[in-house]
Amino acid sequence: MTLVGRDLVSVFDLSNGEIEAIFALADEMAQHVRSKLDIAGGKLMATIFYEPSTRTRLSFEAAMLRLGGDVLSCPEVTSTSVAKGETVADTVRIIESYADVIVMRHPLEGSARVAADYASVPVINAGDGAHEHPTQTLLDLYTIRQEKGRIEGVWVALVGDLKHARTAHSLAYGLARFGAKIACVAPQGLELPREITDRIRERYNAVTYEYRSLDEMVADPELVRSRKVADPEEQLELTSNAISLFDALYVTRVQRERFTAAEQFEAARNSYAITADMLSRARPDALVMHPLPRVDELHYDIDADPRAAYFRQAAYGLPIRMALVAAMLGLREIKVRRGADEPERRPAKKTTVDHVTCSNPRCVTTQERYLPALFEPVGATGRKLRCVYCERITKVSQEASA
Amino acid sequence: MTLVGRDLVSVFDLSNGEIEAIFALADEMAQHVRSKLDIAGGKLMATIFYEPSTRTRLSFEAAMLRLGGDVLSCPEVTSTSVAKGETVADTVRIIESYADVIVMRHPLEGSARVAADYASVPVINAGDGAHEHPTQTLLDLYTIRQEKGRIEGVWVALVGDLKHARTAHSLAYGLARFGAKIACVAPQGLELPREITDRIRERYNAVTYEYRSLDEMVADPELVRSRKVADPEEQLELTSNAISLFDALYVTRVQRERFTAAEQFEAARNSYAITADMLSRARPDALVMHPLPRVDELHYDIDADPRAAYFRQAAYGLPIRMALVAAMLGLREIKVRRGADEPERRPAKKTTVDHVTCSNPRCVTTQERYLPALFEPVGATGRKLRCVYCERITKVSQEASA
Amino acid sequence: MTLVGRDLVSVFDLSNGEIEAIFALADEMAQHVRSKLDIAGGKLMATIFYEPSTRTRLSFEAAMLRLGGDVLSCPEVTSTSVAKGETVADTVRIIESYADVIVMRHPLEGSARVAADYASVPVINAGDGAHEHPTQTLLDLYTIRQEKGRIEGVWVALVGDLKHARTAHSLAYGLARFGAKIACVAPQGLELPREITDRIRERYNAVTYEYRSLDEMVADPELVRSRKVADPEEQLELTSNAISLFDALYVTRVQRERFTAAEQFEAARNSYAITADMLSRARPDALVMHPLPRVDELHYDIDADPRAAYFRQAAYGLPIRMALVAAMLGLREIKVRRGADEPERRPAKKTTVDHVTCSNPRCVTTQERYLPALFEPVGATGRKLRCVYCERITKVSQEASA
Repeated sequence: MTLVGRDLVSVFDLSNGEIEAIFALADEMAQHVRSKLDIAGGKLMATIFYEPSTRTRLSFEAAMLRLGGDVLSCPEVTSTSVAKGETVADTVRIIESYADVIVMRHPLEGSARVAADYASVPVINAGDGAHEHPTQTLLDLYTIRQEKGRIEGVWVALVGDLKHARTAHSLAYGLARFGAKIACVAPQGLELPREITDRIRERYNAVTYEYRSLDEMVADPELVRSRKVADPEEQLELTSNAISLFDALYVTRVQRERFTAAEQFEAARNSYAITADMLSRARPDALVMHPLPRVDELHYDIDADPRAAYFRQAAYGLPIRMALVAAMLGLREIKVRRGADEPERRPAKKTTVDHVTCSNPRCVTTQERYLPALFEPVGATGRKLRCVYCERITKVSQEASA
Repeated sequence: MTLVGRDLVSVFDLSNGEIEAIFALADEMAQHVRSKLDIAGGKLMATIFYEPSTRTRLSFEAAMLRLGGDVLSCPEVTSTSVAKGETVADTVRIIESYADVIVMRHPLEGSARVAADYASVPVINAGDGAHEHPTQTLLDLYTIRQEKGRIEGVWVALVGDLKHARTAHSLAYGLARFGAKIACVAPQGLELPREITDRIRERYNAVTYEYRSLDEMVADPELVRSRKVADPEEQLELTSNAISLFDALYVTRVQRERFTAAEQFEAARNSYAITADMLSRARPDALVMHPLPRVDELHYDIDADPRAAYFRQAAYGLPIRMALVAAMLGLREIKVRRGADEPERRPAKKTTVDHVTCSNPRCVTTQERYLPALFEPVGATGRKLRCVYCERITKVSQEASA
Repeated sequence: MTLVGRDLVSVFDLSNGEIEAIFALADEMAQHVRSKLDIAGGKLMATIFYEPSTRTRLSFEAAMLRLGGDVLSCPEVTSTSVAKGETVADTVRIIESYADVIVMRHPLEGSARVAADYASVPVINAGDGAHEHPTQTLLDLYTIRQEKGRIEGVWVALVGDLKHARTAHSLAYGLARFGAKIACVAPQGLELPREITDRIRERYNAVTYEYRSLDEMVADPELVRSRKVADPEEQLELTSNAISLFDALYVTRVQRERFTAAEQFEAARNSYAITADMLSRARPDALVMHPLPRVDELHYDIDADPRAAYFRQAAYGLPIRMALVAAMLGLREIKVRRGADEPERRPAKKTTVDHVTCSNPRCVTTQERYLPALFEPVGATGRKLRCVYCERITKVSQEASA
């Protein structure tokens, strides 16, 4: 299996072996983040951003330029073009004439799949609403691999609003796929969705601990026992302070708009923030990670701590994106272990159901009317349909599914 | 005659021989749309867009990068700069220090001529309001030449709102110059302006048929007879269905804001849309063209038909723009046939008339006060004045012209 | 002393010898403004503009591309990112992973110093509110040096709103440092701030004449006498017309919003505008300079006069920025005269004072809360504190400073 000419819409489009091969290639690319590798001469990347994102866009553009290619930059596809009614399908079929790879960010969920379906050149999803942002997940995993030496067996705490944080969802799956252990620390109502924890348990047999707060986690003896450490001294330390269990804390923003009461927000904001005091109780080799931008959840006084890994994490985005682009454009061959090239997810059997449209109001199918309502049936009843674009479930009544 | 150092404000700035030479150079460039030709090393193009246009801008930038040059990109010259009061004349006199060629889009009619007048480097008009967009016309003509093998004698139907569609106006002239046959299919009130059809008939002796709807055109026996086909079978087919007469259908958008009543708009929208059913009656080698973006006037279900040429048409913009830039920067010599280098339009005799200003409210002279009101007298009476910037006619009363 | 790896926040960060060395390097760069020098291959510049500025941004980008480097362009860091709360400190710590040099424009005063403090790669201030815009000053001085052959002893009149014009403030200091003579011509209430004229007199022993209007200046016999010309003919000419004294007129905009009454504005606008008539009385080798954009203060009919130097002045920005970037990235060594490498200003002794914050409402510390309120004590009383970011003075009451 090769990545040449393929799209990257979701991290599930890649097998574990392919991800490992991208990581190995990123190791090589990391030697060239301050010079021009010059393997992409004559290749053009178009960055088509329907929502501005300075960091993500610049990271992709820097990757292409470091590879020796050139960039067509659309920092913000404006309302004007949208008002004229150009669809994603039409846009990518024009851009494909000019560019060899398209990097797209779009506010509608599933839009990246549409772009990939219609474009004849590779499409990389740089974020499609709350759906996927696969290169963020790759760089998150790569950060752990680089800084901890491995992903398998690493203990990771996901902290903050785990209901809405797209990056936390994707990372949770990614960690489970590679055998990491996960604890979830989230305010009431903002937990990791049940659908995700169920799938992780069933599909990957991975443990996900759940806590209401960092304090609650710290005090949990069961969590500590599960570590099953042989060294009595470490056991003792763990018993008194579970935060020292974790190899990495992955913190996400708690957003004001998710709360109805201001006091609730203030309480949540404070109890999920990483302070110098809290960090003093963490492992000396723990990582503090964050997809950035942060607001208050990471205090500035921890920035100088070597465990504050979030800027290094952002920096890993460059070799990861260089590796990905190089592989997709066929500039470097990736070597996938034999037997490790099974894609995580096979192409779905697509079907339409009379009069049924996707129930997700943020789905690209709600705006782009030329798209059929295509579903993948989930389960045996035939009453749960997964939209092939946004991947949200639409439930149909007995009559409709009959 | 050479294109080196010249501007392209209007397609009339070019002779037929020059256009043919650009097409011949585009044929060469078409071999390099997926690689770097590397003849423009060290040259800079500035794309100065006062109105955003993702496709047009990216097409020019891709052309420059494929030629091996570099790009200074202004995706949207914002209201801030305009608020500070910088004029087109001043802007281009600064940008000319940084760039070797300026590509400009501006909402005011005639602004491109101003830029060309003041800049010491070549200026390419990428659209100045409703006035001109010459590279669109070049790529439209090139599409027909490439796909039909020639322009002379080709039958083209222009369909949709022909009153407001700048691209249709310019194409009509372009087709006439190269000897194509034209039919116009437009709703009442949205016909090709009389001024244009008159000029085409007088200057180029070209036929323009006019119809109210596609259905009306299809049923017209006179149109069919004019084809004068020798083959009886084809004659029979034409008689029953005039749409099969045409080598190309050039469709433009019918915009809601042009209609006072919603029902009229709905009726027009439907009767000027190209459907799969209509296409089934067209010639097997017909082209469906469109300047894009489309709304409803091209159904998505015809996209897969090989006659749907609109994405190929957009793609032809790349070799055309590569050829143009290469010729204007002197990177490639264009070879114009002897005797074919007469410009279509000679520089006008410019004059001012006391107290007379251009009556076009969208003319650049209404906003940029340093510009004199310069006119070219039209006709013998001296009462019709063509603005040298926006090229609209201002009529003066007897007293003023006296 | 070398410029490699250093930041440029203020022109005071550079010694006179360093500025002269940059000018010498700019002389070399001026040979390459129409070609690619190709010494920056593999280097990336990020242009991060929180306020749009087409000219400044393009000038930096052109400089980098002419040097053979590549550019990551952020024409307008949008409100979206700011709304998400990303600080300057965080932004530059991410961008530094992608780029080798950061060029930043930001509306808050002192923001460039923050960027320089936090970024590990060189930062060039492209304007931080009303604080500094050092490359404008460098190109202003370079223009005089190129066109008059020297700066020392040159007579320069600063004309217009000298209170708010950042460029006039920085240029006044720069002229004084290099021994030029300065006259200030400004409407009442819009004079060069007393703090600046005091500092110029005390620190540089430089003369600054002050006039209310160009007419007043022209009629001043004292000014004329001060020129002490030996040639009786020139003496005579000067006596009748002081404007012929000046080697350069540096004109700035008089903005409507600075006046409470419309008539006052109209009067000021007219009396500080350079007209063809006024220019007819200036020296035949005088320069008319302007930071641009202009509004009405330079009439368009003087553009063709060879003394109208403002477009050449803008063009000098290219070699200056090429030289600066080449020196800061270590692509070219700059040669500073022995003994001339003393920085104009040494790093301040930074201190905090309990409960005292910067009183400048446009200071970056008012928005970016992670920043300490750092001051440099000014004078002996300890009651005047200069903010180390925006450099504005905050006065503290006796209690606070005690």
